[in-house]
Formats: sequence, C-alpha cells, structure tokens
Amino acid sequence: MSDLIAALRGIPVFAELDDGMLARVSGIGTLARVPPGTRLFGQGERPTSLHILLAGQVSLTGVAPDGTKAVVEVLKPVDMFILAAVLTDAPYLMSAETVDEARLMLIAAEELRLLIEHDPKLAMRMLASVSMQFRMLVRQVKDLKLRSAAQRLGCFLLALAGDQKHGGRVILPYDKRLLAARLGTTPEHLSRAFATLRAHGVEVRGMEVEMTDLAKLVAFAGPDSI
Amino acid sequence: MSDLIAALRGIPVFAELDDGMLARVSGIGTLARVPPGTRLFGQGERPTSLHILLAGQVSLTGVAPDGTKAVVEVLKPVDMFILAAVLTDAPYLMSAETVDEARLMLIAAEELRLLIEHDPKLAMRMLASVSMQFRMLVRQVKDLKLRSAAQRLGCFLLALAGDQKHGGRVILPYDKRLLAARLGTTPEHLSRAFATLRAHGVEVRGMEVEMTDLAKLVAFAGPDSI
Repeated sequence: MSDLIAALRGIPVFAELDDGMLARVSGIGTLARVPPGTRLFGQGERPTSLHILLAGQVSLTGVAPDGTKAVVEVLKPVDMFILAAVLTDAPYLMSAETVDEARLMLIAAEELRLLIEHDPKLAMRMLASVSMQFRMLVRQVKDLKLRSAAQRLGCFLLALAGDQKHGGRVILPYDKRLLAARLGTTPEHLSRAFATLRAHGVEVRGMEVEMTDLAKLVAFAGPDSI
Repeated sequence: MSDLIAALRGIPVFAELDDGMLARVSGIGTLARVPPGTRLFGQGERPTSLHILLAGQVSLTGVAPDGTKAVVEVLKPVDMFILAAVLTDAPYLMSAETVDEARLMLIAAEELRLLIEHDPKLAMRMLASVSMQFRMLVRQVKDLKLRSAAQRLGCFLLALAGDQKHGGRVILPYDKRLLAARLGTTPEHLSRAFATLRAHGVEVRGMEVEMTDLAKLVAFAGPDSI
C-alpha cells in the first residue's frame, strides 16, 4: 500500500490531493512491471483501468481497417493513458504496447470515475490533464499539416535537446522504425529527412544525433513557440 | 435572459443541468450574430470566453512561425471551442474565424471555471466534452498518418452522407480551398483526389457530390468503425 501512495505522490495529477483521497486512489490501484513488447490493450476494447506510465516507454498505435498501423504517440513517464477513453467509458481508439521494460500503475476505471464524480478537486485535475492531452494532439495535427517530414524531425530533435539538456547532443529515445512511424513517415523518408537536415547542422551516428547549429535548425524547422 | 436559457437547453452539455445552474451559466453568457470571415480570436491569445457555435460554421486554424496556415477543424453546430484552452486558462493554439454567418454564445471564461470548480455535475459534463474532443483529434491524427489524401476525402464524403441523410448525394459544406486545407492537402492535390475517387463511384459537380457505390467507396477509403 505505501509503495502505491509513494508512487501516487510522484504523479503530478495526484501529488497535491489530501491523504484521504490518496488512500482511496491507492485502494483501487496496482503496480506492475511489464516486459518490452507487451500489448497492454487493443483498439476497440473497453477500458478497465487507467494506465499510468511510471518508467519506460509505451507506444499508442492506431490501426486502419486494412491493418496498416500508425503510431500516434510514444509516451514517456509520467503520463496517464488513455484518460479520454477511461473518463467516458468509450472503446479505445488506439492500442498500447510497451517499447522497453515499463513500470505501470493501473487504476480501476469504474471506481476511478466514481471517485472523480464525488471529488471536485480530483475532477478539476482530470480536466486539466485531458485538456493538456488535447493540446498535445492539436500541436501534432498542426505539425502534420504544416511541416515537411524533415521539419517534423527537426522539431522532434529540438524538443529532445530541451528534454535531455546536453546542448545539441541527443540520444534517440527509440529505434528509427518507430521514430518514422511516430513522425507519420516511412523509414526511407526518415533517412531522406536526416539527409536534408545535414545542411542544417544535424549529424546522426546510430542513435546519437549532434546538432551543431541550433539557431539554424530552429530557422529551418520552425518549432512552435506556444 | 430567457433567450439564453432556451439556447442553453439546446446545448447537450448544459441541457440536463438544473434550473439554478442554467440561470448561473446564462448570467455569464451573451448571444452574438457574427458575419462571415470574422476573426473571433487569434493563436497565442488568452481565452476570455468559451465560444459555443449555435448556427453557421467556424474554422480553427493553426499558424506556423513562417506564417503558413493549417486548418485543424471546421466546426459545425452545436460545438464548444476551445474548451481545453478555456479550462486551463492557456493561450490558444489556434485562431478561430467564421466561415459563414454564425450565431454564437459566449460564456465568460473565468466565471465558468469557478462554476465548474463548485459543481461536480458540470465538471463531469466538461470532462466528457473535452474527452470527446480529444477523441476527435485522435481520429484525425490516425487519418493523417494512415490514409492518402484520396482516402481522407472518401472518409470525409462518407461522413457527410451519414450527416446529410440523402443517400449517396451530398452538398459540400464549404468551398474546396477550405476543404483542401481541412484535409491537410493543397487545392491541386484535392482535384487529383477527386479524380482518383471517380474510379470508386464518386462524381463531383461544383458543390454537389454523388457517390454511386457507397460499398465500393467504403472499401477504398476504409473509414473508422469506432
């Protein structure tokens, strides 16, 4: 039980709830360690738990009727998925799979909805979370409609540099096949995008990428300022 | 005042609230009639009102740093925009403009947030709305990553046929320049997409589109089943 409460205290949406509410949430939660490549749930299924990613990475994938797949997002900790489906008790629009070993918290969906209904503070935190997730998707739709694959890759690398804080040197968080899918392109087009970025100071060696001129890359890729 | 309450009763998210809450919401609302092509707010601005579209159409547009624009969505009534920005008091990620003459309700943002904080029922309805809006964007990201422009156009026409209920005959709701932008393509590529769809039973004459073989178009475009 105390493991769960400690984990909840580390999750921004729960961190500031009072002890009583934390105990109630932990009472409907479980912790799990999941090997890489594990399917957590499938598109079309009804959510039974809210998943919270505490460590590792999880891919969210959409499948077309003809079976082709699109990676909508690759989540990093701490993130909740998929809040919108859990809150509305609606079938998942995406499947989830672990990319590497992951540590997860699972919170029972129906019980969570009841807690939210009776706790305005928790409801407001959930509203803020699902709103932020909506805004992430708005950014992605704009990215897909406004930028070329090379510009999308440039924005992705600039965001990584911001996260990893080693100046212009970053390590790709997952393999290039998954990166291509996340950026809405093919592995062949991703290679061409990396080639295009060479003229803007980007050198790639395996999983390591060095950006020698961040200002030049910003000018080319045009990352969002908000 | 009674005009406002009548309008609120027609908006699903407010329809079932009790009279006291409806009176409080109408107390912070105003009705407006807005001519075509009116800019309602701009990307980067702080929301002062929640906008509710009661009649007409509104485009939501994202702007890249270099000034290029992408139409993220064209709203039809009844829809609220932009809930995520209003709820989190965060700068708009998109600009809004009327496409044709529109009837709008504006609800003061700060006062609405206070009402939601103190009314769990209203909070739950807002949670459901922003969750549904999140799911619309998930569908759009999948659409952009999984389908060709011709398939996206096919899915758009099939959805229209479902809305307009005249079998395979539909009227485009807005001009082809806006339609191209909404589908994340150019007017030239949209013409090519219409030409591609001819082989799948789609004939276009101005704003009128006739689908002579819906099953064939479904097989080609692969619309979502959920």
